[in-house]
Formats: sequence, structure tokens, C-alpha cells
Amino acid sequence: MKIVLLAGDGIGPEIVAQAERVLLFLKQQGLKIELEPALLGGCAVDATDEPFPEATRKLAAEADAILLGAVGSPRYDTLPREKRPEQGLLAIRKALNLFANLRPVMLYPELADVSTLKPEVVAGLDILIVRELTGGIYFGQPRGIEYQEGQKVGFNTMHYSEAEIQRIAHIAFQAARKRNGKLCSIDKMNVLECTQLWRDVITEIAQSYPDVELSHMLVDNAAMQLVRDPKQFDVMVTGNMFGDILSDEASMLTGSIGMLPSASLNDQNKGLYEPIHGSAPDIAGKNIANPLAAILSVAMMLRYSFNEEEAALKIERAVQATLRQGYRTEDIYEIGLKKVGTIEMGDRVLANL
Amino acid sequence: MKIVLLAGDGIGPEIVAQAERVLLFLKQQGLKIELEPALLGGCAVDATDEPFPEATRKLAAEADAILLGAVGSPRYDTLPREKRPEQGLLAIRKALNLFANLRPVMLYPELADVSTLKPEVVAGLDILIVRELTGGIYFGQPRGIEYQEGQKVGFNTMHYSEAEIQRIAHIAFQAARKRNGKLCSIDKMNVLECTQLWRDVITEIAQSYPDVELSHMLVDNAAMQLVRDPKQFDVMVTGNMFGDILSDEASMLTGSIGMLPSASLNDQNKGLYEPIHGSAPDIAGKNIANPLAAILSVAMMLRYSFNEEEAALKIERAVQATLRQGYRTEDIYEIGLKKVGTIEMGDRVLANL
Ligand SMILES: CC(C)[C@H](C(=O)O)[C@@H](O)C(=O)O
Ligand SMILES: CC(C)[C@H](C(=O)O)[C@@H](O)C(=O)O
Repeated sequence: MKIVLLAGDGIGPEIVAQAERVLLFLKQQGLKIELEPALLGGCAVDATDEPFPEATRKLAAEADAILLGAVGSPRYDTLPREKRPEQGLLAIRKALNLFANLRPVMLYPELADVSTLKPEVVAGLDILIVRELTGGIYFGQPRGIEYQEGQKVGFNTMHYSEAEIQRIAHIAFQAARKRNGKLCSIDKMNVLECTQLWRDVITEIAQSYPDVELSHMLVDNAAMQLVRDPKQFDVMVTGNMFGDILSDEASMLTGSIGMLPSASLNDQNKGLYEPIHGSAPDIAGKNIANPLAAILSVAMMLRYSFNEEEAALKIERAVQATLRQGYRTEDIYEIGLKKVGTIEMGDRVLANL
Repeated sequence: MKIVLLAGDGIGPEIVAQAERVLLFLKQQGLKIELEPALLGGCAVDATDEPFPEATRKLAAEADAILLGAVGSPRYDTLPREKRPEQGLLAIRKALNLFANLRPVMLYPELADVSTLKPEVVAGLDILIVRELTGGIYFGQPRGIEYQEGQKVGFNTMHYSEAEIQRIAHIAFQAARKRNGKLCSIDKMNVLECTQLWRDVITEIAQSYPDVELSHMLVDNAAMQLVRDPKQFDVMVTGNMFGDILSDEASMLTGSIGMLPSASLNDQNKGLYEPIHGSAPDIAGKNIANPLAAILSVAMMLRYSFNEEEAALKIERAVQATLRQGYRTEDIYEIGLKKVGTIEMGDRVLANL
């Protein structure tokens, strides 16, 4: 199995290095994998003048899975749009048809106090957010900035077809079936026709999943309910834009976004795996970034792309054991525990593996 | 001064009744006002088959200010789109050109424990969210659901012109100037060209307000930062859709959305004032709804439309005194305090006035 490693920008290289150690360990243990580094984002712009160079496109197309650190840095914000690191990320998602973005939001019991929410509100939190990733307003046409009647106007198009909604619906219902059997679909059907279609199609697909309890919620209410009572949710499914906002809100409920992995899958379970946190340029190169989200992204890769549930669980248990032993990077540190750097955290997880 | 009262649906009539008592008391004290009831939302659909009937349109056009309870109920969700209560609300905003939606998010010290967030994270919270209300994806054309190549597609258009962004920017900068001089503008410029224009125009207008400290934040990050450290914000400004989501999220940080008023203004300070909470059909008619958001909406009306700062402060102080005396409706009740119904809460505020 071929895995492409996209270290990316900022803290990306440091955290991917620790995840790579985990992969190499599994290889020693007999997992048949080949690792291949490539460029995406700002580092790719620096080297090739393109955020998603042709060489990366080829490698990614041939790979079975991709591990990404993070892309972006304010120093690219003034480049023309198509040269910015984020465009590389959007382009690879689209090129590989990675329409299903899975974002588990879990609070490890060991970290319950790190949250800004009261422990009783978030203890045991375990939500899976399923976000459509290759459609919606992110990719809709027409889009742009133009002159009209003497002034500039900016516009984008939110767009979903039945087929696009159906395929993400199936992913979400199937995920709910494997969990607690509850799916909440998020839309803004009282204002946006596009999301009225979303609600209609989800409702239709629900007939094939009588064992899953479906509910619908407006996006503004969902943003509230995540704060009021996040544990009411099991699986949430929504479009690209709302998924971007709600999954970031949800992840911050845990107080430790340095812990959260994600998967972006196509219809053959080929996937791109990445932490949900950003490239954090301010702490890059200091050996203080938390590598656990990158390591847990490897676990997701094993589960979804390689069907290696056992190995995935092994990694997740090693991470939890490390937390139980009291090791913490700075972002999740609490007084009385053992503060470690990026590399030492990698050491500890490997020791527990 | 003419005030139109739109009681609306669900708990709307009950809470507006208490706000009306406050207005009538001020009238006794010499405030020159006339009150006129009218229909909007589901009650209007029931009576006239239109959510925003012509009679209401005329009264609203002639009025100096409007007080709204709340509109909507699930029992209208199956009506054709144009007959649903929310369409009445959208239509009155557009008809009166109420482009500036002001949503103060304040946590009264007396209610610090009601929040699901740790008290130290939210104590003293005082944010003003300025939301553009008559543009963006809410009103952009084209929009709809159509057949294309044998399947349905749904689409909406996010759209802003320079002029639309400029006028809301001025409102936001001026508000920041009267508060702590900090403005944070929210966009998704790394993906949406429409919001790139938003950022560019806000940055340009900032030159006229050198005394205000402007920052920009991506909407996904803003959704996180509201959970991580909401007190970092003073004034936030954003478009219609993001404002809908973020203001609801922010209001829930206080744990007491039954307390929060809002104003929607045109360029002559004519305004529609309403609680940010919904019509709560499940508790309608039970005399348990919290009337304080409606009463505080009257305070905002006096401040923004009638320039009666003294009277506005008087109401706000009466509300705070009532809380200090320990009176609570069910939504904000804590053990040891005095639970009261909607009407008795009105009594208490009037007594303190
Ligand atoms: C970097 C950006 C384009 C991206 C997005 O908006 O999808 C990021 O926020 C994410 O959620 O992965
Ligand atoms: C009822 C609905 C149309 C409305 C909106 O989305 O603007 C509401 O959520 C609000 O925020 O006032």
C-alpha cells in the first residue's frame, strides 16, 4: 500500500515526522506499506510556484492513502488567489473526489478539564461530523468579483445536486448505524432552497435506513445546541460551508483541537488524513506542537483505507495510555502533569505501542 | 411616535404583552407614543393567507419603530415556501431596508452560573454582533430548485456589492468607537471571493476610523474562538449567513437566550426590535416564557430609534434590579431563587421602574 506524506507548512513537518515514526514501526511489525513524501501548500509554492504541483497530483492519484500535516501561513495571504496554500488543499480534495469528510469530535476523559465548558456538559462527548467536501458554495459556479454599474460586486454560488446529497447521505447513515443509530442533518431550509433540497433528499434516503433515527436541525440552532448540550448528538451530516463552521466549533468544545484527526474519503475509501488543527506558524520549529492529532490520523487511515481495525485500535489505545500516564504537550498541559515536547510525545506513544 | 406591535406566534403574544406594559407605563410618564397592533408570521397566514399582509406593510412603513415577538411554528413547515412565517420576517426586513442587525451578547453577572461555559470564561461577557441583514445569500439571485440533466439541483447565490458592505461597515466602526474601540470582521476570504471583497472593503473603510483597532478572522476560526475565549471580542461584523450562525452561537454562551434583545435598523434609525429567541411553541400559552428579552428590546428601541438614552437605561436597570432581587423565569432558574411566570416577571420589572 502506497502512502503519500504531505508534511505541509508551519508545524506540519514536525507532527508528520511523529506520525511517520508510527507508520515505520507498523511496517517493521509487518504492515506492507511504502512511504513517499511530496509537496502541498506553501512549501509547494516556494519550491514550484504551485500549491498543488503536477508531481504531487500524480503521486496522490496513484497512492492508496495520503497523510497531510497542515497547510497555510499568513505570509502567503497577499499572493494571487490561485497561488495560496489553501487552494492546494481544495484542489487535491476535488482532484481525488474526496467528498466525504469525517470529523470525529471526542473528549478523552483524561482531558475533561481542558475544555472551557463545564466538565459535566462535555465529559464523554463523542460526535461524528460528516461534512460534504467537494460541493456546495466552495466549488459552485459562477463565482468571482466583477464591476457592475460602477461598483465591485462579489458573488459565489451554493449548489448541490441530488446525487451529491445522496452519496454523502449514505455515508452518514452507515456511520450512524455503526454507532448509536442517531443522525442529525443540518440545513437552513427556511431560507435557502439549496438546503431545502438537502433536507428532502436526506429524508428520502432515510427510508433505506429504518434502524437509524433521523432528525433535522437549522444551522443557527445547531450552533447553539453544540454549546447548550453537545452530548445530544451522535452523527451530524451537513454541507461543505456549514460543516466547516460547525466542526470547528464542535472541536473547540473539547478544548484540545491538537487531539483531533479527520478523514476525507472518495467512493473507494481512498483517503486523505489530516489533523483538524491548522499550521500554527507561531509555534513552528519549536518542538512544542501536539503530534497526537497526526498520529490519530494514522489510526483513521488504517481503519478506513486499509481496513486494519486492530492496528487502528492499537494506536488509539497507545495514545490514551500516554495521556493516562500524564504526558501532555503545552496545548493540553495542566499543573501537576508532565510537560513534553513534540518528539518526546512521539517517543511515549511508540513506547506504549 | 408610532410603534407597531407584532406579537407573532408561539410565546410572542405573551412576551410582547409584558413589553407593552412597559411602553404604556412610559407613556403615562409622558413619552409621546401611539401603539398599533398588526399581524406578521403564522398568525398572519392564519388570518389572511399571507405571512406579511398588505395592511401590516402599510402600518410598518408609516411607523417609527416596530416591536416583534417571534414568528414560526413547525405546523407551517409544510406550507409552500412563500406562505411560511419566516418569509414574513425576511420580507419586512427587506421592505423596510433594515440592513443593520445589532445583537448585543451580554452576560448579566447575576446569571453567570446559567452558562454551560466555566464562569471565568464568560463572566463579564459583552460583545456586540453587527450582522448585515438584507443582502448576502439570503436574498441573492438566482436561487431555486430545478431539473438539470435528469436530476434536481438546488442553488443559492451569495452576493455583496461594495455599497452594501460600506454601509454596514460604517455602522460597525461607529459602534466600536462608542464601545472599546475594537472591531473584528468575519469572512471566509480563503474560499469565497464574495467575502474577499468583504475584507477588502472593510479594510478600506477602516482608514476613516484610525481610532478603531480592526482585525479579520475566518468564520471557522471565529466559531472556535467564541468557545475558546469569547471575551477577546468587542464588536464583530459579518454578513447575513455567518451572522445568523455566529450570533446564535454567541448568545448561547450566556446560557440565557431568553434575555437577549436585538435591533434591525435602516439608514434613518427606523428599527424593528425583537428578542433573538424563537417562538418556542412548546411552552406557548403556559405563562412560563421569559419576557425580559422583549422588555430589553423596548430599551433598544428607545435608544436607537427615539434617542431616549435615559429611558433605555431606566429599563435596563429595572431588569437588572429584578434579577438582583432573585426573580427568575424557568429558563434561567437556579435553586434557592424565586421562580416566577411571564406576567409576574412583568410585574416585578414594572415595580422596579
Ligand atoms: C483551509 C480551508 C480551505 C479549509 C476549509 O475551509 O475547508 C479548512 O478550514 C478545513 O476545514 O479543512
Ligand atoms: C427565522 C429566520 C429566517 C431568521 C434568520 O435566519 O435570519 C432567524 O434565524 C434570525 O436570525 O432572525
